[in-house]
Amino acid sequence: MKKIAVLLSGSGVFDGSEIHESVLTMLALSKLGVEYQCFAPNILQMHVVNHLTGEVETNQSRNVLVESARIARGEIKATEELELSEFDALIIPGGFGAAKNLCNFATNGSDCVIAPEVTNFINQFADSKQPVGFICIAPVMIPLLYGEGAIGTIGNDSETAQAFNLMGGVHQEAVVQDIIVDEVNKVVSTPAYMLAGNIVEASIGIEKLVKKVIEMV
Amino acid sequence: MKKIAVLLSGSGVFDGSEIHESVLTMLALSKLGVEYQCFAPNILQMHVVNHLTGEVETNQSRNVLVESARIARGEIKATEELELSEFDALIIPGGFGAAKNLCNFATNGSDCVIAPEVTNFINQFADSKQPVGFICIAPVMIPLLYGEGAIGTIGNDSETAQAFNLMGGVHQEAVVQDIIVDEVNKVVSTPAYMLAGNIVEASIGIEKLVKKVIEMV
Repeated sequence: MKKIAVLLSGSGVFDGSEIHESVLTMLALSKLGVEYQCFAPNILQMHVVNHLTGEVETNQSRNVLVESARIARGEIKATEELELSEFDALIIPGGFGAAKNLCNFATNGSDCVIAPEVTNFINQFADSKQPVGFICIAPVMIPLLYGEGAIGTIGNDSETAQAFNLMGGVHQEAVVQDIIVDEVNKVVSTPAYMLAGNIVEASIGIEKLVKKVIEMV
Repeated sequence: MKKIAVLLSGSGVFDGSEIHESVLTMLALSKLGVEYQCFAPNILQMHVVNHLTGEVETNQSRNVLVESARIARGEIKATEELELSEFDALIIPGGFGAAKNLCNFATNGSDCVIAPEVTNFINQFADSKQPVGFICIAPVMIPLLYGEGAIGTIGNDSETAQAFNLMGGVHQEAVVQDIIVDEVNKVVSTPAYMLAGNIVEASIGIEKLVKKVIEMV
């Protein structure tokens, strides 16, 4: 039976993993009869956003691993606990957590860096040519991880696409139900809530991405 | 177009709404072309549970409405903002939040009471004979809301079933993919993660429940 790692970045679209995208990923994997294990880096969130008001809660701090555990129903491991040989592929849902906690694209744009725990985690999959799926805003890490010429999509936001290319990637526009595949690097991406108007729209692209990642194993 | 209210109780299985059940409810509604609006009571959670360790964080407090907003991507209203005439039905996902924040079944068992904000909210649907769907542990509120003889299921946990009957309800055992329908009260319930071994199992019963609730409108 195939086993897929899912890398989370907190719990909530504005400061963590986008919850719908994360759950839709797990649902698509489970529907294909594939096992999954959630992971998250054991680091502090960049900040905590009150999701009712949209404002930053300056007096609060939360841990990415601890909050990600909410989406995983407690069944989660820290990124440094990865035993690569147990896994066939990796999928990374979006949400601002991908651009605030996994890397700092939200504040630094094309000058962004990926957290060391996260680089080390994803590179183990990349180096062993295991397929990796990036959802929503998570694809901004593709150029940094795979280098010059790596292909991906964040949908059609021109500023983000430009930053993707500035970092050395080759951005391809996509609509919400599309996936973009980099066959050389074994990388798949889909826009999800970068473009989705509702949860069904997000689910179509995510299902396609999950199916493609599993096919590439 | 039909419009359904979804009542959340926080964000995370151990102290709030079960995240998978909540997202699966929204997905099932959206697939049927039905609009939804999330609600939650503007009250403090009973407590905050660290979902990595399972331990209570005694130095933290979180608000049910603010945390529920994470699942709703910010699109949520307080229970007192309900305009009943805009809605056709109500669905209540499970998670310990339903038994700790919406009511206090987790600590008081069959002596439990429902939070006044929540009683008032659900009773508006019940009094106008609009269908209500209860998922997972949320059905423990059915006897208190609908009185003597109201029918529901929490799966097959004998202690919880006994408490359900003690409160005046008529508990019917169900397996994970089943729904139990009380035609008189227009109440539908399904066990979901009271029994589900994985997310696909939970999704089957929840899809059935959503379909039945919409049919009953």
